[in-house]
Amino acid sequence: MLKKVRFSAGIWAFTPCADRFEPKGYKEPSTVPDQIRTAKNVKDLEGVILQYPTGLNESNLDEIRSVLKESKLVASQVDANLFSRRFANGSFTSPDEKIRKEAIEIAKSTVNMAKELNCNYAGLWLGQDGYDYPFQVNYKDLWEREINGFREVALYAQEKAPNVKICIEYKLKEPRCYMTMADAGKTVAICQEIGLPNLGATIDFGHCLFGQENPAESVVFLHRYNRLFAVHINDNYAYWDDDLFFGSLHMLQALEFVYSLAKVKYEGWIGLDIFPYREDVVQACNMSIQNFKAMAKLLDKLPERDLGRAQSKHDAVEAFKCLREIIFK
Amino acid sequence: MLKKVRFSAGIWAFTPCADRFEPKGYKEPSTVPDQIRTAKNVKDLEGVILQYPTGLNESNLDEIRSVLKESKLVASQVDANLFSRRFANGSFTSPDEKIRKEAIEIAKSTVNMAKELNCNYAGLWLGQDGYDYPFQVNYKDLWEREINGFREVALYAQEKAPNVKICIEYKLKEPRCYMTMADAGKTVAICQEIGLPNLGATIDFGHCLFGQENPAESVVFLHRYNRLFAVHINDNYAYWDDDLFFGSLHMLQALEFVYSLAKVKYEGWIGLDIFPYREDVVQACNMSIQNFKAMAKLLDKLPERDLGRAQSKHDAVEAFKCLREIIFK
Amino acid sequence: MLKKVRFSAGIWAFTPCADRFEPKGYKEPSTVPDQIRTAKNVKDLEGVILQYPTGLNESNLDEIRSVLKESKLVASQVDANLFSRRFANGSFTSPDEKIRKEAIEIAKSTVNMAKELNCNYAGLWLGQDGYDYPFQVNYKDLWEREINGFREVALYAQEKAPNVKICIEYKLKEPRCYMTMADAGKTVAICQEIGLPNLGATIDFGHCLFGQENPAESVVFLHRYNRLFAVHINDNYAYWDDDLFFGSLHMLQALEFVYSLAKVKYEGWIGLDIFPYREDVVQACNMSIQNFKAMAKLLDKLPERDLGRAQSKHDAVEAFKCLREIIFK
Amino acid sequence: MLKKVRFSAGIWAFTPCADRFEPKGYKEPSTVPDQIRTAKNVKDLEGVILQYPTGLNESNLDEIRSVLKESKLVASQVDANLFSRRFANGSFTSPDEKIRKEAIEIAKSTVNMAKELNCNYAGLWLGQDGYDYPFQVNYKDLWEREINGFREVALYAQEKAPNVKICIEYKLKEPRCYMTMADAGKTVAICQEIGLPNLGATIDFGHCLFGQENPAESVVFLHRYNRLFAVHINDNYAYWDDDLFFGSLHMLQALEFVYSLAKVKYEGWIGLDIFPYREDVVQACNMSIQNFKAMAKLLDKLPERDLGRAQSKHDAVEAFKCLREIIFK
Repeated sequence: MLKKVRFSAGIWAFTPCADRFEPKGYKEPSTVPDQIRTAKNVKDLEGVILQYPTGLNESNLDEIRSVLKESKLVASQVDANLFSRRFANGSFTSPDEKIRKEAIEIAKSTVNMAKELNCNYAGLWLGQDGYDYPFQVNYKDLWEREINGFREVALYAQEKAPNVKICIEYKLKEPRCYMTMADAGKTVAICQEIGLPNLGATIDFGHCLFGQENPAESVVFLHRYNRLFAVHINDNYAYWDDDLFFGSLHMLQALEFVYSLAKVKYEGWIGLDIFPYREDVVQACNMSIQNFKAMAKLLDKLPERDLGRAQSKHDAVEAFKCLREIIFK
Repeated sequence: MLKKVRFSAGIWAFTPCADRFEPKGYKEPSTVPDQIRTAKNVKDLEGVILQYPTGLNESNLDEIRSVLKESKLVASQVDANLFSRRFANGSFTSPDEKIRKEAIEIAKSTVNMAKELNCNYAGLWLGQDGYDYPFQVNYKDLWEREINGFREVALYAQEKAPNVKICIEYKLKEPRCYMTMADAGKTVAICQEIGLPNLGATIDFGHCLFGQENPAESVVFLHRYNRLFAVHINDNYAYWDDDLFFGSLHMLQALEFVYSLAKVKYEGWIGLDIFPYREDVVQACNMSIQNFKAMAKLLDKLPERDLGRAQSKHDAVEAFKCLREIIFK
Repeated sequence: MLKKVRFSAGIWAFTPCADRFEPKGYKEPSTVPDQIRTAKNVKDLEGVILQYPTGLNESNLDEIRSVLKESKLVASQVDANLFSRRFANGSFTSPDEKIRKEAIEIAKSTVNMAKELNCNYAGLWLGQDGYDYPFQVNYKDLWEREINGFREVALYAQEKAPNVKICIEYKLKEPRCYMTMADAGKTVAICQEIGLPNLGATIDFGHCLFGQENPAESVVFLHRYNRLFAVHINDNYAYWDDDLFFGSLHMLQALEFVYSLAKVKYEGWIGLDIFPYREDVVQACNMSIQNFKAMAKLLDKLPERDLGRAQSKHDAVEAFKCLREIIFK
Repeated sequence: MLKKVRFSAGIWAFTPCADRFEPKGYKEPSTVPDQIRTAKNVKDLEGVILQYPTGLNESNLDEIRSVLKESKLVASQVDANLFSRRFANGSFTSPDEKIRKEAIEIAKSTVNMAKELNCNYAGLWLGQDGYDYPFQVNYKDLWEREINGFREVALYAQEKAPNVKICIEYKLKEPRCYMTMADAGKTVAICQEIGLPNLGATIDFGHCLFGQENPAESVVFLHRYNRLFAVHINDNYAYWDDDLFFGSLHMLQALEFVYSLAKVKYEGWIGLDIFPYREDVVQACNMSIQNFKAMAKLLDKLPERDLGRAQSKHDAVEAFKCLREIIFK
């Protein structure tokens, strides 16, 4: 199962891991090149997800390229950093047209940067697009600006970087109390409205959990509409984006997530999106990857025919008996 | 604001209100005609939502018609009852083709029944479509059956009852742990896929809350895609479908919900979807309607221009100052 | 590990399993004696939890005794049914002094009934004690009545049935939006206030999950205060009391729960508290028990010394490596 | 109602308000003296909550004293900062005995510092005491260390600063996934175990909401055990500690919270615990205080006798009618 996936890691795991109570972070600061050098110590890791223009930008492109090469890693995805203070009131949805244009320019440059690095995925997690209070925004305008922003970037990519896919990373909340691109359904709806094939979704296992989506079902739902572009893994307690290492909590739902990815023949990157505040980052990444691989291996022994029969009757007990074959034997 | 809305009530509020610990319910049993007769005691109520084939069906149609007339109420909507034991493993998504066809037939007959009663809304809340356990169902098949079911019913209605709109009432969960038609985004996505104008959504204020959608935003989102067909009101603690009377808890979000309905010029029914287990049903309905009306009246005094200015900057404090004008004066 | 525990099942699992949308339940009705006869088909089951006065009472005591004997089962616990319509506004907390006295009498008779059946546990899950709306109750009075009720019953048991322990089954909500005996902390607090050793807690794995307590920690917390009397198992999605079969979802937290029970040397009953709405009840019980046993068996291979070393540093990765030894080998 | 309360503000509201995505914060950095000078611009504010040893410590005590005086503010409470990187794995619960002792020393010095400032409240919010992963810690040891820590500090305060009350600020989670002092029940339980009258609770309106406690009930519960020492106000969406300005969301539950404080004759400080990431801090504080005051004023008109009658029957509708008198008139 899933023999063709490759593992990458969001570079943010290698930062000091700040939170609002310890803004300096729980670890020593380091440069992005050093973070990449640390990443190479993770077993089975082949890529890193970089952020533009923080971390990666036009002025350090060559250096990053050379550090990647030296570390035998590739850039699996370039994400736009549109969640800094500048965009506190929104990026694509900013009510300030000047800031909004800047945000869209950064997104376009992110696409360029991905192309420069021979990388096929540009990530748009619009962390500041949303709101916190009732009556704070005009929803009609907010959605209009958001959708127009995505359209503009997708059209740009179609023309300038046809190999680069735009990945909308949906998330229910944080840092905003309500985020615009909140769930799989809305993501598909606006992709359908815009109607361009290079716009799709990053599914994040943990975002699904605390958004009360079943991750395994969302894989299939997004795939139905050809919008499953990228995958993030981690874990949490189903209420918040705790970004724990993958496999540490929801083992059975994680197993089904891996199973779903195999069923839809997903062949892209499996990106680690974790925040190891108090753990050694290399070890936390190792755990995530090795847990994923161990699950994929367990699934090789799943009695597929019996499971199919159970599912054809929606029989939860018979389905679970199939699972017991691999988890308790 | 909202001068053209009319109030109706889901007939289930008038039942004994059972739960799993007291399946006989907290009140005396009664017949549907008597439930309608009780409903007429609710102030400002003009309609009731009936259920087919339980409660309303071909054999008691005339009786129901006459009781409605006598009570000076109309049928505002007819809902398909597709959540009884027969459909425990799914209605449109049933793995048993025979049961699935039955479900679709009931949905079509519900459309007929709506037409018979000169009512423009047929409701499909597919309470049993979903699953409870990991690995229990094949999601691809589940979605395929669900969407095909909706398409078949919408096509049928288009031909046989062009005035009847099909209202998908989405809900995150209960009675299933995961329900297929879970949220506004998925509802729009499948409506777009099916591409028929007579298929849309019932937004339920409480379903939004515990699905962690902001009800006021969902009004606008559904309206953007011309899928806002019907409205249900109630309240809850944002974790479960408590079906408390409207206005009892989330007053500010309720105010914004009413405000959003006015903004999109909603002119249909406001349907009470409450379960007054321990309250007098007429009083609980009165509270819901009078709270809605009181909110609409408060909103008449909202300083619209100031609010628009605040929203044009996403300024939460300035927006709240506008609210303070109406809630603390 | 845990060699001395025995399994019992709440008799309610064998009912038709009603919910508010299908109050007749998803299965055929049956008598309590027949439910007990069905229970004997569950592998490794030794006891049943009965309910007084519904199901078990003075008039059918002899019949129940003989059915139990014939089925080679014992009554592991007798629960007071204080959640029927009669107690819709509260049992120990009822504002109606007559109803409140009735509730306390039922609780006392429950103790008697336990004694009659040589059973050491009387269960008090006060499902109706709480409230649903802001401003609905006077909290001071509510707590006063609740605590006085527990005190009266515990004093009664101390005198009349010194072998019977009173088990408060705490739960955050359902059927009330807020329940008085909501969590482990409040349960310990009122047990300390009352100061009688025969008053303690039933910990329910699922209640902990959706109450956002960590079940394994609550075992230790209750044990610290000598209040861990009884244990219920099941599973859910951490938002509601779904009462799924044990082990079906939160495998790792379930493993730690079993581990905690072993650490505190728990030797009582493991009671199945499940609601198999759509599953064969015997199979759902089998799954619960066999999953528990399989977990206990896995834990026999846990590298205890390594785990102790990891825990002595709060090292999550090292601790998880110990877990990987038993779940992926 | 509540004529004797005074308002203070947690000094952290005046920082740049960092989060993990923007660790530099959403605003310009400033010194603590400047933060105090900003605080004086808040209307009706009389105090600030300071943090030791960050912000306030032995070396800047005189400066802080003079800035307070100049700003006509007092220190309403001194909180121990035990949530910095040093205590990442726990403060009172640290597995490292050296760090644990340091934490306890900081807590004792916090008491001293309170005394020095003629302030009667020392706050202990032990943000790092808890854990994130299953099997990460030994719960028995964790609780032992936590309780012993509180006992040691309370004994110290009893002897050295008899006017200073130790306020445990309980919170379900964040920054840890599970925090030791999680809820009102556990706080009372350990206060009872320790048995010292100078140890009690800070109730935080928002912590209650996302801990699924009803704030108004928790006020009464803590008061029952003489453990209601301090009060924090803010608001959130009942899932996370959003720290929005007070009154912005849960108006009815906030009203009942203020009502409960009046009922138990609370006469201490009302402390603003907000994080205005994107708002002007002075305005956000103004909103919080003025909303609180407006609610207290509304409550003056509450028909107390009618409400008492409704509550004596647990009648939600009658109780709500009393509320309608003040919110819709």
